Amino acid sequence: MGLIVMALYFATKNIGKFREAKLLMTEYGVSLERLDADKVEIQSDSIEEIASYAASDLASKFKVAVVVEDAGLFIRPLKGFPGPYSSYVYKTLGLWGLLKLMNGLDDRRAYFLSAVAYSKPGGFVKVFTGKVEGFITNRPRGHGGFGFDPIFKPMEGDGRTFAEMDPSEKNRLSHRARAFRKLALWLRERKIRC
Amino acid sequence: MGLIVMALYFATKNIGKFREAKLLMTEYGVSLERLDADKVEIQSDSIEEIASYAASDLASKFKVAVVVEDAGLFIRPLKGFPGPYSSYVYKTLGLWGLLKLMNGLDDRRAYFLSAVAYSKPGGFVKVFTGKVEGFITNRPRGHGGFGFDPIFKPMEGDGRTFAEMDPSEKNRLSHRARAFRKLALWLRERKIRC
Repeated sequence: MGLIVMALYFATKNIGKFREAKLLMTEYGVSLERLDADKVEIQSDSIEEIASYAASDLASKFKVAVVVEDAGLFIRPLKGFPGPYSSYVYKTLGLWGLLKLMNGLDDRRAYFLSAVAYSKPGGFVKVFTGKVEGFITNRPRGHGGFGFDPIFKPMEGDGRTFAEMDPSEKNRLSHRARAFRKLALWLRERKIRC
Repeated sequence: MGLIVMALYFATKNIGKFREAKLLMTEYGVSLERLDADKVEIQSDSIEEIASYAASDLASKFKVAVVVEDAGLFIRPLKGFPGPYSSYVYKTLGLWGLLKLMNGLDDRRAYFLSAVAYSKPGGFVKVFTGKVEGFITNRPRGHGGFGFDPIFKPMEGDGRTFAEMDPSEKNRLSHRARAFRKLALWLRERKIRC
C-alpha cells in the first residue's frame, strides 16, 4: 500500500479543544484543520455512537475526512450518569448537584471517556476511545480545566484533581489525548498522511 | 380552501402511547396510523427542537405526513433538569436519585411538557406543546403510569400523584393529550382531513 495524502478536519466550535488536538497530532506528523460546522449530536447512551453519527454526517455533507470528539464523565455507582449528557448536567445541576447525589456513597469510582470518530465520505467510520479512571472527591478543588474537573481525581495522579493540574500535566493523562493518539497511530500504520 | 385528505403517521415504538394518541385523535375525527421507524433524536435543551428534527427527517425519508412526540419533566429549582433527558435520568438515577437532589429544597415546582411536531415532506414543520404544572412529592406514591409519575403531583388535581390516578383521569390532565388536541384543532381549522 502506497502513501495516501489527504486533508483531515476536526469539527469543533471549541478553539481550545482544537489547539490541544492540533498540537498533539503535530507530534505524530499529522496536520489537523478546523471545520467550523454544526454537528448533529444524537441522544445515545454511547458517546462512540454520538461521535460516529456526527462524523459520518459531516463527512458526507462536506465531502472531506472529518474527526469528531465526544466525551463524558461516567460515575460507576450512578450507572454511568451523567455520561453523554455531562455538559447539560454541568449546566443544570453543577458540581454541587453532582456532589449531593454522591452524598453518603462509599463507592466514588468514576471515569472520563473520550470518543474520537474518524469518517470519510462514503460511510467509512472508525472510533478510538481514551479513558482515565479516578474518583469523585468530597468537595471541589482547583480552578483549572473546565466542567467536572474540580471534583475528579485521576487514579494515576498524586491526589490532585484535574482542576489542580496545569494544562500540560492534565493533557498527559487526559482521555482526549489518549483517543487522539490512537487515531494518529492508526493513520500512520495505514500510511495515511494528513 | 377546499378539503385536503391525507394519511397521518405517528412515529413511535411505544404501542401504549400510539393507542392513547389514536383514541384521542379519533374524538376529533382524525385517523392516525403508526410508523414503526427509528427516529433521529438529537441533543437539545428544547424538546420542541428534538421533536421537530425527528419529524422532518422522517417526513422527508418516507414521503408522508409524520407526527413525532417528545416529553420531559422540568424541575424549576434544578434549572429544568432532567428535561429532555428524563428517560435517561429515570434509567440511571431513578426516582430516589431525583428525590435526593430535591432533598431540603422548599421550592418543589415542576412541570411535564410534551411537544408534538407535525411535518410534511418538503420541510414544513409545526410544533404544538402541552404542559401540566405541579410539584415534586417527598416520596413516591402510586403504581400507575410510568417514569416519574409516582413523584409528580399536578396542581389541578386533588393531591394525588399521576401514578395514583387511573389512565383516563391522567389522560384528561395530561401534557401529551393537550398537545395532541392542539394538533387536531389545527388540522380541522385548515380543513386537513386525515
